[in-house]
This record gives sequence, structure tokens and C-alpha cells, in this order.
Amino acid sequence: MKGKVSLVGAGPGDPELLTVKALRLLRTADAVLYDELVSAEILKLISPAAQLHNVGKRCGTKKIQQEEINFLMIALADSGLNVVRLKSGDPMIFGRAGEEIEALRKANIDCEIVPGVTSALGAAASAQIPLTHRRESSAVVFLTAHQASNSEAADWSKLAGSGATLVIYMPGHNYADMSARLKAAGLASDTPCAIVSRATTPDQETFRTSVGKLQTSPTLPAPTLLVVGDVVRHAVDEKFEFASSGSEISIPAELVSGFRAESIQEEPVA
Amino acid sequence: MKGKVSLVGAGPGDPELLTVKALRLLRTADAVLYDELVSAEILKLISPAAQLHNVGKRCGTKKIQQEEINFLMIALADSGLNVVRLKSGDPMIFGRAGEEIEALRKANIDCEIVPGVTSALGAAASAQIPLTHRRESSAVVFLTAHQASNSEAADWSKLAGSGATLVIYMPGHNYADMSARLKAAGLASDTPCAIVSRATTPDQETFRTSVGKLQTSPTLPAPTLLVVGDVVRHAVDEKFEFASSGSEISIPAELVSGFRAESIQEEPVA
Repeated sequence: MKGKVSLVGAGPGDPELLTVKALRLLRTADAVLYDELVSAEILKLISPAAQLHNVGKRCGTKKIQQEEINFLMIALADSGLNVVRLKSGDPMIFGRAGEEIEALRKANIDCEIVPGVTSALGAAASAQIPLTHRRESSAVVFLTAHQASNSEAADWSKLAGSGATLVIYMPGHNYADMSARLKAAGLASDTPCAIVSRATTPDQETFRTSVGKLQTSPTLPAPTLLVVGDVVRHAVDEKFEFASSGSEISIPAELVSGFRAESIQEEPVA
Repeated sequence: MKGKVSLVGAGPGDPELLTVKALRLLRTADAVLYDELVSAEILKLISPAAQLHNVGKRCGTKKIQQEEINFLMIALADSGLNVVRLKSGDPMIFGRAGEEIEALRKANIDCEIVPGVTSALGAAASAQIPLTHRRESSAVVFLTAHQASNSEAADWSKLAGSGATLVIYMPGHNYADMSARLKAAGLASDTPCAIVSRATTPDQETFRTSVGKLQTSPTLPAPTLLVVGDVVRHAVDEKFEFASSGSEISIPAELVSGFRAESIQEEPVA
């Protein structure tokens, strides 16, 4: 009998922000294929009996193509294993889930999607920035600065002119470039913005500034998100304390007993 | 000593889509203020020792004002209780979290935000619609048809013209009106769209159509979401099976033992 593939969101970083369902699937999967951005704390929650495959596209110097990931998922499920394809954040937001679902359907493999907390929501929560606000913003846009070569890029000038809050995934480190791009899209220089780095982890940092002064920001470690719009004014003032307990300890012991691997073993990618 | 208020996302409906952190806070809260849209299955996970307050703004015929909710949260925390303010989906997306955070800061009450799976992500997962796609959409917009009277409404024509996927929260039941509004914003009649009703619950339904034919849809029960854009073509073809186990049984028994209330008792709102 064929196995099933679950495309599962791992959330923004804090292992406690996994959904209960994601945790259950990690505990019972026969094989887990995970991306580079999924943290070690989360990988420790996977059943030690499961095969682990790092399919991060920046894995060392090796480039793993999307086709290879599809092939591996299908081969594992075809051999009868229940497979979790673990993606940081939510699978349906900048996660290439569309391509993987298509490949699984073509191969006649049963697939389900388990949504997760996308990193914009993690960053908004930690920095206390409401992404919508009754009086200030009735829409929010998630977009990316990092385009696939043949993607139809969204029109930044229309998005910037709409009055919506913008959350830019993978904004990169060239803040001067980003500032110029946002101004070219029509945003005023004094539009508030914030770079949020490593949201919901103990290493989280936030830098609040404005579109015109974005290049004065220190270079914050990836992964980062850039939030742009009037709502950024509501962010907590000081460099805030990390509010979440955030460590693996906070996951109820009875839920993970017997499942915490001492060390993570990686299987070679087929 | 003052208590703390946690603004917690309850996710899109399926109790298994609570985060582990949300579940922990529900188990240990002294008081929980919840909205109308939070399901009975989720309320059953709250410690029976906790005070429960239904502050849904559509609660029976009684209208509860935002100021009353703020007052109640502050009064409870001032009396030393740890309070969970439970909102469906994610608190920072159409959840009025901004106003509640502001009130708590003014009252000098410690507050933290626990993000959740917003309903757009739940609907996308269940209907298997990737909200972004490398070749089709590099941005997604969450907006609402239901505006506060004095809100600065986002410009629909700019959002519709941007090429982004649109997810409309609370689209209402006047589908002819919505169709006209989307066409007036510049969308082609043949733009694919889908109404997703009660996403991630056993009662979920999806109706796929196009912007021009939206009014041919049957009236689906609230809460609904409307997803608009080329990515809707990827939705599962048939009226899909509800893939999630979705019931309360799927939450590990050891995690909820001793915490399942036989019946939900509601405290009167102060």
C-alpha cells in the first residue's frame, strides 16, 4: 500500500508554535523531508525511528533541485512510508507547495496540507505590530523581494499605493536598494517600517526605522522580514524582551516522552 | 501582583490546529475571554477551573462594545488573574488586537501575543490552493469586505491590479454585489475564485467558480472566505473529503487529561 505525504507548516521558529497536529505527525512519520530553516529544536521532536532528509536548497554547497525533492517524496510514499514534508512557516505561503502538490497528484499519491503559523504572523506577534487595524489598515500584503526568474512579479507600486500593510519576506541585506525600491513604488520616506530578524526565537531582534532611513539599520541575521506601514508605529517601543518561553522545555513532557532523539541523524538524499 | 494578558490565536477551527503554546495557555489560564467564532471543541480544552467569558460581539442580541472587553480584561488582570483573550485565527489579522494592546499598555498590564493559523491559511490548506506560486503569483493580500465606519479602506482596484492572490475575509452573502465590486476593481470575469466555508472543520464546503459567475454559488454558511486569483485553478477538483482527523479525539489524551470540562459554564460579562 502506498503511503501518504503531509505538507506540514513548522511555524515561524519557536517549537511551541507548532500546531498540535504538526507535532502529532512529526511523532508518527516514517520519513521527514525538511528545509534548511527548520530549527534543531523542532527536528528533535521527530520520532527517532523516522528517516530524516535535509532537502534545504542551501544545504552545504550542494544544490538540491525541486525535481529531486519531488522524486524523493514520491519514492518514499510509493514504498509505503508516511512522509512529512516539513516547511518553515506555512506551506502555502512562499513554500513551493503548489509544485509539490502537483507532482504528488500526478504520481497518484494521497496528500494533505497542514497549515502553520507563517513567519509574518510570528514577527507581528513578537514585535506587537497589528498587521491590520480598524482605523489604519484594512488589508495586509505578503510579498517577496526574491523572485523566481520566470515568475510574474507583483506590481509593487500598486501594492504600495493601496494603503495596505506590506510584509516583505526574504528582503535581503541590501537595505539601501530596498529603500529605493519602496520609494520608487510610491511610499513616502517617513512611512514607518521594521526589520524583524529570527522572529519568535530567543535570538530575535527588531529594528524600527522608516522607508527613507532603512539603510541606517544594522545588518540583522537571516531569516528576516520587513514590515512596512503605519501600523508599525504600534510596535513595542524598546528592544523588547523575548516574551515566549520559546525553548523545547515548554512543550509538555508527556507529549514528547520517548520521542526526543539524542542526536539528529541525517540520511543521504537519494 | 497583577496578572498578565495573552492575546492568543485559536486557529481556523480544527482544534488540532491550535498551537502547542495556545493549548498550554488554555490549560493554565485563570480566565478566558473568547469570541463567538471559537468552537465548542476548543472551549472544552480550557481548564474547568477557569472563568469563561463569551465576549463575542454578536453574542445573542447583546452588543458588547470593544471598551467593555478592554475593561474586563484589565479588571481581571488587575485582580491578579492570568487572562487569555482567545480570538479565532490569528490575533493580528482582523482581530482588533491593536486596540486591545493599546488599552493594556495604558493600564500597565503585561501583555503577550501568541500567533495562530489565520483562517486564510486554513482554507488554503484544506482546499489545496497555494496562495503564492513561483510562476503565477508572487504576493497574497488579505483584505476584508466588512469595513469599520471610519477605517481607511484599502484600494481594491490597486490590489486587484497588482497580480496578487486576494483572500477576502467576511465576504458576506451578497455574491452578486461582491462580483460587481471585483469587476469594478478591474478583475476579468474569468478570474478563478472559490468560496470556502467553515474551513478545517468537518462541515467545510468549497465552491469553485469565477468572478463573473460568483452569484451562481449556493449560499454557504459563515464563516466563509473568498479566494480570488489564478492559483485557485490548483484547488482539489472534486468536493474534497475532509482530510483532517479534525475531532477532539486527535489531541493526545495525555495532554488534555483532567482538563476536559463536561459542560461549558459561562460567566456573565461584567
